[in-house]
Amino acid sequence: MDHSPFRTQAERVAQRHEKREAVLLAAVRMFNSQGFHATSLDDVAASLGVSKPTIYHYLGNKDQVLLECVTRGVEQLRAAADAAHAEPGTGYDRLRDFLTRYGQIIMDDFGRCVIRTADEQLSSESSARFRALKREIDKAMQALIHEGVADGSIAPTDVQLTGFTLAGALNWPARWHRPDGRLTPEEVSAQMVEILMRGLAPR
Amino acid sequence: MDHSPFRTQAERVAQRHEKREAVLLAAVRMFNSQGFHATSLDDVAASLGVSKPTIYHYLGNKDQVLLECVTRGVEQLRAAADAAHAEPGTGYDRLRDFLTRYGQIIMDDFGRCVIRTADEQLSSESSARFRALKREIDKAMQALIHEGVADGSIAPTDVQLTGFTLAGALNWPARWHRPDGRLTPEEVSAQMVEILMRGLAPR
Repeated sequence: MDHSPFRTQAERVAQRHEKREAVLLAAVRMFNSQGFHATSLDDVAASLGVSKPTIYHYLGNKDQVLLECVTRGVEQLRAAADAAHAEPGTGYDRLRDFLTRYGQIIMDDFGRCVIRTADEQLSSESSARFRALKREIDKAMQALIHEGVADGSIAPTDVQLTGFTLAGALNWPARWHRPDGRLTPEEVSAQMVEILMRGLAPR
Repeated sequence: MDHSPFRTQAERVAQRHEKREAVLLAAVRMFNSQGFHATSLDDVAASLGVSKPTIYHYLGNKDQVLLECVTRGVEQLRAAADAAHAEPGTGYDRLRDFLTRYGQIIMDDFGRCVIRTADEQLSSESSARFRALKREIDKAMQALIHEGVADGSIAPTDVQLTGFTLAGALNWPARWHRPDGRLTPEEVSAQMVEILMRGLAPR
């Protein structure tokens, strides 16, 4: 069956998934480089050599495409939080591992889009969904900080404010870091996290 | 002369300055609360009970008003850097004082506007000016970090990356802090700076 001209059901599903991912990646990269307002789905379609209805077919309208991009970014952050949460070691260790991964995601395509997307660029319904997703990440980070304070591996601190401090520092590279910059995302994240975590260690 | 109906030249200059300041403050507060795009100079004029030409007279068009707002914010940050730079003590002490003031300014009207204004909201000429102003603040912060590393009061570090880490953390409250929030700007800034500075202390 190697050369059958007919695709199996599994192949069709896989190919549909692959195409959808290609469209999503082309869109997020264009949003990040040109800005959301300056990007049309026509541009995205043209960059892939497909038609605009093809984009609609896989992802829907521009608002739905953007919501899918930021949702993907938030899901990566949440997966990082879940993975860190399940690790052995102290709360300090788990928070450090989460932040290191968080920083890397923020400099990657979908994470970058999470930070570069202003709430008002989305429809009011999508915007509400986006804010709810971001709040979940805030809560996950605060939970990790709280565990560290509880087991004594992190100095007593205002957990919410500390979370915002860490997130602010780690979100900023989505604006200034260039893929061809002096430092790789891994280097940037590691050095930022070293400074931030030293600030949280018990005295 | 207490009750003369005629104003002196000095009074006229002072009153003109006072009016210009009132217009600028009304504008920046409206930009911060409603967003730049959603705010018209008609709204600003109406909030002051004056006409739109009055706004033009004092500050120019909407792009010029926004540029004046962010310039004012950057000037406050620069004044804080200059004041810190002139202080006695170690580089660590001077950086801490600068960051503490920086955080407070970022939660005040004009500093908030610096962070909330995206480059693309300004005309290309004003945007270039704005970016140049922000680079000056980056450089001033990096100079203070460098001095601390040079005198041994700050652990050896990548000065540019450290500057971006501190700025990212301290810029973020311009987005999330509410004037009626649980913590005052002074409290937020002090606690953030404590975490950040502990991260920079020599081991």
